[in-house]
Amino acid sequence: MVKQRITEVLRNGQPDESLVVQGWVRTKRELKGFAFIEVNDGSSLASLQVVINEDLPDYDSILKQINTGASVEIAGVLVASQGKGQRVELKANQVTVYGGADPDTYPLQKKRHSFEFLRSIGHLRSRTNSFGAVFRVRNACATAIHQFFQERGFLWIHTPIITANDCEGAGELFSVTSLDLKDVPRKETKAVDYSKDFFGKPTYLTVSGQLQAEVMATAFTNVYTFGPTFRAENSNTSRHLAEFWMVEPEMAFCDLKGDMDLAEAFLKHIFKYVMKTCAEDMEFFNQRIDNTVIATADNIINNEFERVTYTEAIKLLEKADVKFDYPVSWGLDLQSEHERYLAEHLFKKPTIVTNYPVQIKAFYMRLDDDEKTVAAMDILAPKIGEIIGGSQREERLEILERRILAQGMKPEDLWWYLDLRRFGTVPHAGFGLGFERLVQFMTGMGNIRDVIPFPRTPESAEF
Amino acid sequence: MVKQRITEVLRNGQPDESLVVQGWVRTKRELKGFAFIEVNDGSSLASLQVVINEDLPDYDSILKQINTGASVEIAGVLVASQGKGQRVELKANQVTVYGGADPDTYPLQKKRHSFEFLRSIGHLRSRTNSFGAVFRVRNACATAIHQFFQERGFLWIHTPIITANDCEGAGELFSVTSLDLKDVPRKETKAVDYSKDFFGKPTYLTVSGQLQAEVMATAFTNVYTFGPTFRAENSNTSRHLAEFWMVEPEMAFCDLKGDMDLAEAFLKHIFKYVMKTCAEDMEFFNQRIDNTVIATADNIINNEFERVTYTEAIKLLEKADVKFDYPVSWGLDLQSEHERYLAEHLFKKPTIVTNYPVQIKAFYMRLDDDEKTVAAMDILAPKIGEIIGGSQREERLEILERRILAQGMKPEDLWWYLDLRRFGTVPHAGFGLGFERLVQFMTGMGNIRDVIPFPRTPESAEF
Repeated sequence: MVKQRITEVLRNGQPDESLVVQGWVRTKRELKGFAFIEVNDGSSLASLQVVINEDLPDYDSILKQINTGASVEIAGVLVASQGKGQRVELKANQVTVYGGADPDTYPLQKKRHSFEFLRSIGHLRSRTNSFGAVFRVRNACATAIHQFFQERGFLWIHTPIITANDCEGAGELFSVTSLDLKDVPRKETKAVDYSKDFFGKPTYLTVSGQLQAEVMATAFTNVYTFGPTFRAENSNTSRHLAEFWMVEPEMAFCDLKGDMDLAEAFLKHIFKYVMKTCAEDMEFFNQRIDNTVIATADNIINNEFERVTYTEAIKLLEKADVKFDYPVSWGLDLQSEHERYLAEHLFKKPTIVTNYPVQIKAFYMRLDDDEKTVAAMDILAPKIGEIIGGSQREERLEILERRILAQGMKPEDLWWYLDLRRFGTVPHAGFGLGFERLVQFMTGMGNIRDVIPFPRTPESAEF
Repeated sequence: MVKQRITEVLRNGQPDESLVVQGWVRTKRELKGFAFIEVNDGSSLASLQVVINEDLPDYDSILKQINTGASVEIAGVLVASQGKGQRVELKANQVTVYGGADPDTYPLQKKRHSFEFLRSIGHLRSRTNSFGAVFRVRNACATAIHQFFQERGFLWIHTPIITANDCEGAGELFSVTSLDLKDVPRKETKAVDYSKDFFGKPTYLTVSGQLQAEVMATAFTNVYTFGPTFRAENSNTSRHLAEFWMVEPEMAFCDLKGDMDLAEAFLKHIFKYVMKTCAEDMEFFNQRIDNTVIATADNIINNEFERVTYTEAIKLLEKADVKFDYPVSWGLDLQSEHERYLAEHLFKKPTIVTNYPVQIKAFYMRLDDDEKTVAAMDILAPKIGEIIGGSQREERLEILERRILAQGMKPEDLWWYLDLRRFGTVPHAGFGLGFERLVQFMTGMGNIRDVIPFPRTPESAEF
């Protein structure tokens, strides 16, 4: 008999079809002479209703084992469903229980659990409706990202996780070492003797693959990274993870406008893909988590993003009839409240802010002709704030060297990065998308720890 | 005028078509009254031939800037090519040089460079034919992997990079810490005071996502990881990297046979996809690197893999008329020479060896009924040796606990992993593919450092 995933059965199953499903029991209802069980295999939010008649051999003993959480295999025949909400149900001819789940100890009973409690059982939470939906949508977002770039001839490149560059960007770094922390070797000067360490020098977990992506873009024109990045920032908030995934496209022969156009097309593509492939999950988020997520998706898909310069944005914020906690003034960075005011209240859609003051942006961003601003862009999303940050990169050797020095960094540490400007330099641009922020934005989930399978945060590296 | 990638132009361009290409100059030939340049943008191995006539304004000055490595934009009209090897060439109407490349200092001149030298200029090596082909094939392998699993309803899941589990598998671990190595805090007992560290306990870089993939498989049935993994092993060989990418599918309701069937279909799919989408690059490898790679790909695509038990394999090795350096005896692990004998000499195709002795395999592999072997399988590839290692997992709580204890590990450290066997346990199986080994196998590249953009090896974390 054919083994089928439950999503297939619910979508295409026909009465009188014989098949086998496998999954975990969500609920059991015993009635006179028969029982209903709901079986879920993670392929869809909806479970398949299975009817077990008392004429099944060992009916009583099987029913006793089938508690919430038990794993089962059911062979049977589809019948048109009498009940509401499903087209077909499965009449069981044979039931195999692989593993029970003692109702006294299995933590996932029928009642609703708080997300906080579910975080403490991160190894089981994916068996709930909410986390099932989150991780299906997360997978769909990831697939949409690869599809978008591959269709456009971008190469997926793997930039290093372990790096000896401590100057890639902002944020505190995790050290990576093979030294014994109980007994760190010293030189005569008492400094750490890194010659004994695996790489012969201090190494860290990467905060961005951008610099290396630039290397690859100057050979393949269009590339993207999609990999983990790290911040050792002690921020115990609902918006920060110590380990998160980032997507970083990098395009040679591309300026800031091309960068913005690509980023906008990219976000639209992901939302379209998820709305199409995860309609049931998105409906669930809209009903149970945040009743604006579908309207937001439609808004993104159907509207052009707003584009304003930083200088214009400051003027708009200065005119706003809202009291901000943080000051607004040309030269200061935008705070979360300012970003949300622009995207949520003023424009009510994703907003691209461009050409930020040179002082508040990274050394590699291209200096504008006025020498006061750089060709940077941030995409601010309603409720989330900055979801994408990008820029045209400085391709002029002399200016880049000057800016590296101005940051107190040493050009010789970035000799290879500077070489890209010495040999066949090109205008180029790229951006970074925080993948978990995207999934949060898509699903409406309030805490970023609930959109990654195993969150890493201060004091917490469970599972 | 339409901007086109060179791969498109070479494939679909028609005479009289006007277009713009952008890329880097590979070679220049000056003849009387005109010049040929080869422009490459990384989209294909082949470059586009561009003809520049002396009637172009500033002909002399432009030609002087166009050296190997220079970045250019050419607007022109396609004409049928007179030369061999290309259908069309581009007659330039306008040439823009973005960045020159001084022939006295640009390291990539026309002559052939050793891979070893090219590793020292890892930021430029992707601009050569060989590395261009390697990274296009690498991207195609990665795309084929996602496509294979997504079409079959597997979810891509991101398992953690930073882990507090020091018992995931074999191999030495890198420590991850936010402590200052110059001044590691101590407790009164002199032990390291990990309460001051970011996660409040010792943490490491993961060696495998398998245990967490099992968590996700018991909610979604079929999942896979594709992410970086690490070994702090001081092996300075052509087969080892400290940082490499691994693909690890995990399937609930699956036994060892299902695992082998999936792995075989998986490898066949990847080879088919790459042969179809990277034909030109594969032809290049066959001509320049290893003249067996296309035959090997055909062999994999068209033949069933050999399947033998470890016990049978030992008998075959004992009968072999070859002198091995390492002893062959039931209970000892197979060495590389044994693996290669089986796959390369005896069966001449990928060979799956199953049911290894319990003593030489990991604690999580399912104990066979004879209690002497476990339901493990390794796929051995000609020339490469082990390319995939997998197993059915032990789903029986008592046996798993016993095996954890037998390894000197503490069951309570793996409470969540054991919970998967307490609540709705299922037969399940999975495998791991070393992604760089696959790319080596595909391309015939001899050194694993040459199939990853930025290799991490002992004493080396450049770029």
